[in-house]
Amino acid sequence: MAKRYKLVIEYNGGGFCGFQRQQAGVISVQGVLEAAIKSFSGESVVIHAAGRTDAGVHALGQVVHVDLQRDDIVPHVIQDAVNYYARPHPLSVRSAVIVDESFHARFNATARRYRYRICNRRAPPMIEAGLAWHIIKPLQITPMVEAANLLLGHHDFTTFRAQFCQAKSPIRTLDEMSITANGEMIEFTTQARSFLYHQVRNMVGTLVMVGTGQWSVADFQHAFQALDRSKGGPTAPPQGLFFLEPLYERPPQQE
Amino acid sequence: MAKRYKLVIEYNGGGFCGFQRQQAGVISVQGVLEAAIKSFSGESVVIHAAGRTDAGVHALGQVVHVDLQRDDIVPHVIQDAVNYYARPHPLSVRSAVIVDESFHARFNATARRYRYRICNRRAPPMIEAGLAWHIIKPLQITPMVEAANLLLGHHDFTTFRAQFCQAKSPIRTLDEMSITANGEMIEFTTQARSFLYHQVRNMVGTLVMVGTGQWSVADFQHAFQALDRSKGGPTAPPQGLFFLEPLYERPPQQE
Repeated sequence: MAKRYKLVIEYNGGGFCGFQRQQAGVISVQGVLEAAIKSFSGESVVIHAAGRTDAGVHALGQVVHVDLQRDDIVPHVIQDAVNYYARPHPLSVRSAVIVDESFHARFNATARRYRYRICNRRAPPMIEAGLAWHIIKPLQITPMVEAANLLLGHHDFTTFRAQFCQAKSPIRTLDEMSITANGEMIEFTTQARSFLYHQVRNMVGTLVMVGTGQWSVADFQHAFQALDRSKGGPTAPPQGLFFLEPLYERPPQQE
Repeated sequence: MAKRYKLVIEYNGGGFCGFQRQQAGVISVQGVLEAAIKSFSGESVVIHAAGRTDAGVHALGQVVHVDLQRDDIVPHVIQDAVNYYARPHPLSVRSAVIVDESFHARFNATARRYRYRICNRRAPPMIEAGLAWHIIKPLQITPMVEAANLLLGHHDFTTFRAQFCQAKSPIRTLDEMSITANGEMIEFTTQARSFLYHQVRNMVGTLVMVGTGQWSVADFQHAFQALDRSKGGPTAPPQGLFFLEPLYERPPQQE
């Protein structure tokens, strides 16, 4: 009988055109994962992910599920085999467990968490190169926090929605948008049931307008209320964005 | 009149054969820095560094000094110019200041601080790739801390001294060797007036023998007291090592 596996995946987005499998010759996270699974199991599988990430966006705890017909593969073997066959692509399986066939990586996720990192200093980062957005102009945290708090809750996020977003509704509920500064590294952490296309990067890019002082918090609020993408700030670049994890409700305890 | 500049440098050691300029065709931190300074100033300079790092070893706060004959260059200009001309090598100048001609990056440093990072988990790291030593076997922190404490103070460190070390004496005074664990990332932070060649990597490699349980703390002590490199553990790989900073005594306050 087929078994369903839940895999937690880490990847450096710089090595991929994005999560989703595309035309031949383009390297996607999905394509590398499916090819690695085929290499060791011989099975042509389709994996399903909690969230699709764009080209250049990283993941620390992406979750996928996959069904294998062979039912004798213990989780550590699938983990180590994928990590072997995925080389040299910058992707690894952090954990693998067998789950009930009712588990769906995307549909069962009740929330997604993302982090956006900014290196705020004059010199371009070398250790954090490709892992943060480099901004030279000093950012003020306090007004960014004030503006970020306006985003919390149930709103129409059209101002932060990419043109090509395919979601039916621009209404989302933002559970968290916290900002911490540790030396020259500024981190935004955000959580929602789901996000619109480019929503996190557009929110961060617009908060930065407030951080640099180009916009007041009132300017930010007007842009947010305008429900017009052209009134928002720029889209923050992909290399600062990390998909931290999806959240799942605990299954009911079995007797 | 010539002016002396103190530069704080960050680099990813993966892009260099080490700090020191070598034969032509080999890319060193020193060579890239000197070439970048020549590119914008036209002057052939020799830079002096607080510490020489090996191939693959990173730096967050390496300090160098350099003398320029032209005396009209403000520090921000030398910073931005070096950062421009050093590309595409993974090196940047974090800060630049004019210092008194009595300042010497190497001889005035009263201590050096290093950090060694280990990613302790089954899956190979992708976000931290090249920035940590990947060890799969779980490491126990408590016995490593106990062994690390034996290293503190004034000792003969022959067991942790590389064969090609050119120091006159194997006696050093270790001011700090602290170990912290944050999730799967284990960090060793150490400070001394100066270190023997490969001393930090040899100490960490030997502490790991204790962390995995292959050695007891008593085994570690015997190896340390044997004053014999062949009795120590392996040399930890370079990509986990970061030169954090040299320390300088504050100059006496001027009237």
